[in-house]
Amino acid sequence: MPDPLIALKQRLSEVHNLNAAASVLDWDQQTQMPTAGIAARAEQKATLAKISHQMFTSQETQQLLADAEGVAGSVDPASDDAALIRIARRDLDKATKLPTSLVTELSRTTSLAQEAWAGARASNDYPTFAPWLEKIVRLNQHIADALGYDDRRYDALVDQYETGMTARVLDGFFTELKRELLPLTRAVFERADAVDASPLHGVFDEERQRLFIEGVLTDCGFDFQRGRQDRAVHPFCTSFSQNDVRITTRYDREFLPMALFGSLHEMGHALYELGVDPSLEGTLLSNGTSLGVHESQSRLWENLVGRGRPFWKHYYSRIQETFPASLGSVAPEAFYRAINRVAPTLIRVEADELTYNLHIVLRYELENELLEGRLSVADAPEAWNAKMENYLGQAPPTDTEGILQDVHWSLGILGYFPTYSLGNVLSVQFFEQARADLPQMDDDLAAGRFSPLREWLRENVHRPGRKIDPIDLVQKVTGNPLTPEVYLRYLRTKFGEIYGR
Amino acid sequence: MPDPLIALKQRLSEVHNLNAAASVLDWDQQTQMPTAGIAARAEQKATLAKISHQMFTSQETQQLLADAEGVAGSVDPASDDAALIRIARRDLDKATKLPTSLVTELSRTTSLAQEAWAGARASNDYPTFAPWLEKIVRLNQHIADALGYDDRRYDALVDQYETGMTARVLDGFFTELKRELLPLTRAVFERADAVDASPLHGVFDEERQRLFIEGVLTDCGFDFQRGRQDRAVHPFCTSFSQNDVRITTRYDREFLPMALFGSLHEMGHALYELGVDPSLEGTLLSNGTSLGVHESQSRLWENLVGRGRPFWKHYYSRIQETFPASLGSVAPEAFYRAINRVAPTLIRVEADELTYNLHIVLRYELENELLEGRLSVADAPEAWNAKMENYLGQAPPTDTEGILQDVHWSLGILGYFPTYSLGNVLSVQFFEQARADLPQMDDDLAAGRFSPLREWLRENVHRPGRKIDPIDLVQKVTGNPLTPEVYLRYLRTKFGEIYGR
Repeated sequence: MPDPLIALKQRLSEVHNLNAAASVLDWDQQTQMPTAGIAARAEQKATLAKISHQMFTSQETQQLLADAEGVAGSVDPASDDAALIRIARRDLDKATKLPTSLVTELSRTTSLAQEAWAGARASNDYPTFAPWLEKIVRLNQHIADALGYDDRRYDALVDQYETGMTARVLDGFFTELKRELLPLTRAVFERADAVDASPLHGVFDEERQRLFIEGVLTDCGFDFQRGRQDRAVHPFCTSFSQNDVRITTRYDREFLPMALFGSLHEMGHALYELGVDPSLEGTLLSNGTSLGVHESQSRLWENLVGRGRPFWKHYYSRIQETFPASLGSVAPEAFYRAINRVAPTLIRVEADELTYNLHIVLRYELENELLEGRLSVADAPEAWNAKMENYLGQAPPTDTEGILQDVHWSLGILGYFPTYSLGNVLSVQFFEQARADLPQMDDDLAAGRFSPLREWLRENVHRPGRKIDPIDLVQKVTGNPLTPEVYLRYLRTKFGEIYGR
Repeated sequence: MPDPLIALKQRLSEVHNLNAAASVLDWDQQTQMPTAGIAARAEQKATLAKISHQMFTSQETQQLLADAEGVAGSVDPASDDAALIRIARRDLDKATKLPTSLVTELSRTTSLAQEAWAGARASNDYPTFAPWLEKIVRLNQHIADALGYDDRRYDALVDQYETGMTARVLDGFFTELKRELLPLTRAVFERADAVDASPLHGVFDEERQRLFIEGVLTDCGFDFQRGRQDRAVHPFCTSFSQNDVRITTRYDREFLPMALFGSLHEMGHALYELGVDPSLEGTLLSNGTSLGVHESQSRLWENLVGRGRPFWKHYYSRIQETFPASLGSVAPEAFYRAINRVAPTLIRVEADELTYNLHIVLRYELENELLEGRLSVADAPEAWNAKMENYLGQAPPTDTEGILQDVHWSLGILGYFPTYSLGNVLSVQFFEQARADLPQMDDDLAAGRFSPLREWLRENVHRPGRKIDPIDLVQKVTGNPLTPEVYLRYLRTKFGEIYGR
């Protein structure tokens, strides 16, 4: 390896370690930290963000990258090293456009905004969160302006999470989803009584849930020597290295799907991080290639596997034995129908597969309006409620069940929500390709053999990490670009069968 | 406030935040981290140690401190600011003597050595830990040589933990302790059957222990909004800010004192960190002034309060109700005698008040011999066993119960153990002064009123933080220098009464 590359890698690994440390502090804040620790924690994370950004964008790193680019001619263009130089250049150019003061300010603001949001949500008090949201919208406007964009501010923001994505493409994407999903959901709503969800409501001892879920995660390949699962208000997955990937969940003692499908979802994210090629560990390439592809993995395990018939062929008798009082007399098909029930919900994370994307459309539209100044923070709750009425036929009675439900904006993140819908679409594209490549897949799942699917995902989707851009990855793995078509056909078939055509 | 002081404080607070982040990573490693996470964690901590040391010893910080010293004339010499400049100069001069490469190497080595030690201890396999100990002794020799010393390498090391302490002073201190304690312990050993420890051995449900202990900690003033308690292999206290101070403990279901007195001990450390003047938060002055004074606080709550008659006058009926099967028919006086039983033990942390210091003498002597090359790492277990035979009349049958029992050396810490004996002595000096100032103290403790003692400690010992050096603090609070005399009299009286003269 040429010397300049060694020096660059050493430098980047230090930045990587600082970012990993910040992630540990964040995980601790969300799962362990005593409440009074927040002020100091905000300062600690702001310092890490500041130093990481300073080190990454320093003259020294710029020079090391330029030196490495100077010897790139002697590096195999298909190698990890070539990819590292390419991604480092892209990341560095972006980071350099952001002043360190803005990065530090965003970190400090969002640590505190997160607490303000949690308080506002708990007491249905949007006005106490509004000043933080104002500040976060303003900071994101600054970020978008600093990063630059051709067409709309949104382009600069979404590109941070989904390389190459633009608001123009998303407009078309969501228009197509809306056109199909609005009539489809309405048709299903009219047959609401075709599915009975009562089996999922009962008494489900939390410790029994935990043990059942840990068993499922282990079966699917989540290695508790390389990760852990904890309780948190907002479920998430975080990774400090390829050998320390953590997920969180929340339990509802009276509603089974909450922890069960939430855990499968976060496990899908975790398997991605755990499955990246070990040779990329500790480099810029060692994470998922985009949030859309990441979400495709979580939704694949949550919905395509976890809400599918084969999965429950394997697990249903076991979950009946775990909760005999609630499920003992429920037929497998009734359980399958219950976990796939479609109903208008106020809460995104509780939404079924069919209505989920409508929650995303709403957020995408509001984010654009906020960023472009067409909607004020003060008027945002009303706009939220009007869209809920329009898309799902019911407005939330409180802001807690409306605009305050999601953590994302308090984390300073705008432009992230669309990746959930991209992930939904990609999950089906990947899953159908896997089924085409693995003709025994449904039989394997029905027998609790998850390794063929998991290894297929690892080889095709996980292993490259950030070496392959999302657009290229989808094309390479499925032979097609991202397209809602396959996804919409899947929804029509699945829910047509459940609800009758 | 003069501008140069503002700039210095800003810089120092960033270094402080980096060090706090490293402490979070360390706490996580010891209480939460999945086993496979260790390699990446070692790198993360090494990066933080490196950057912290680089930032602290940089030309920029040197200049900021010089500028602040330039305006020190306009600062009240008794003010926090004057103390900050004084302590910053002392810390910076020390840190500057250590090359960053040595600091980084020590951090990386000890993260891994800690795992090696845990494995070696679990399997009684000293040879697998020996290479790590060799490396740690060598690194500490480099540290001592880099820091410099007049007389012996030990001086440079112990001064890191106890400002102003030297091996010459410690030699005299331990000689005096040995002269008194060796005959005293032997006399007590001969009357071993005067005290029956069997009430402490039984079945003590872990969850009941935890709830009882959390109640005691809360009563004593440990605020769970500003801290938490977790399980760990090795009990410790760590502080990320004055509002996030965490302690750990370990439970033995068959031996009550383990978690109970261990928790009181760590709580004593925590109350010190929680009690420093809030105006010092986030500065170099916001921690305890020395490890000896720190240990005086832990031993005070563990032994002077927790193993005293007044404390159990308040709590005994409650603990009887908590563990009726084991304690229901045990008289209060029998319980008091049991928790103060003196017996030769192999394990330091299980030692009674009388024999505890003999464990420290042993470690102090071995550390000196290792550092000065008079003892090889290979021969150390034998030397350990011989001293145990000599001081306590029994050699450990395994290294796990001998030289492998303590975590300290694996953490890279040599020169730390003497502070435990300094703390024992100081705990009695402070406690007797508190009793002189608070004539109702014993009645208060017997009634479960802990706030007078806690507030006395806060005002006199905790609040100044590092503003007052340990030697000056002892003189100021007690009117006397550190002296074993008061301590030895306390031991003779207490154990003379229990064992008969």
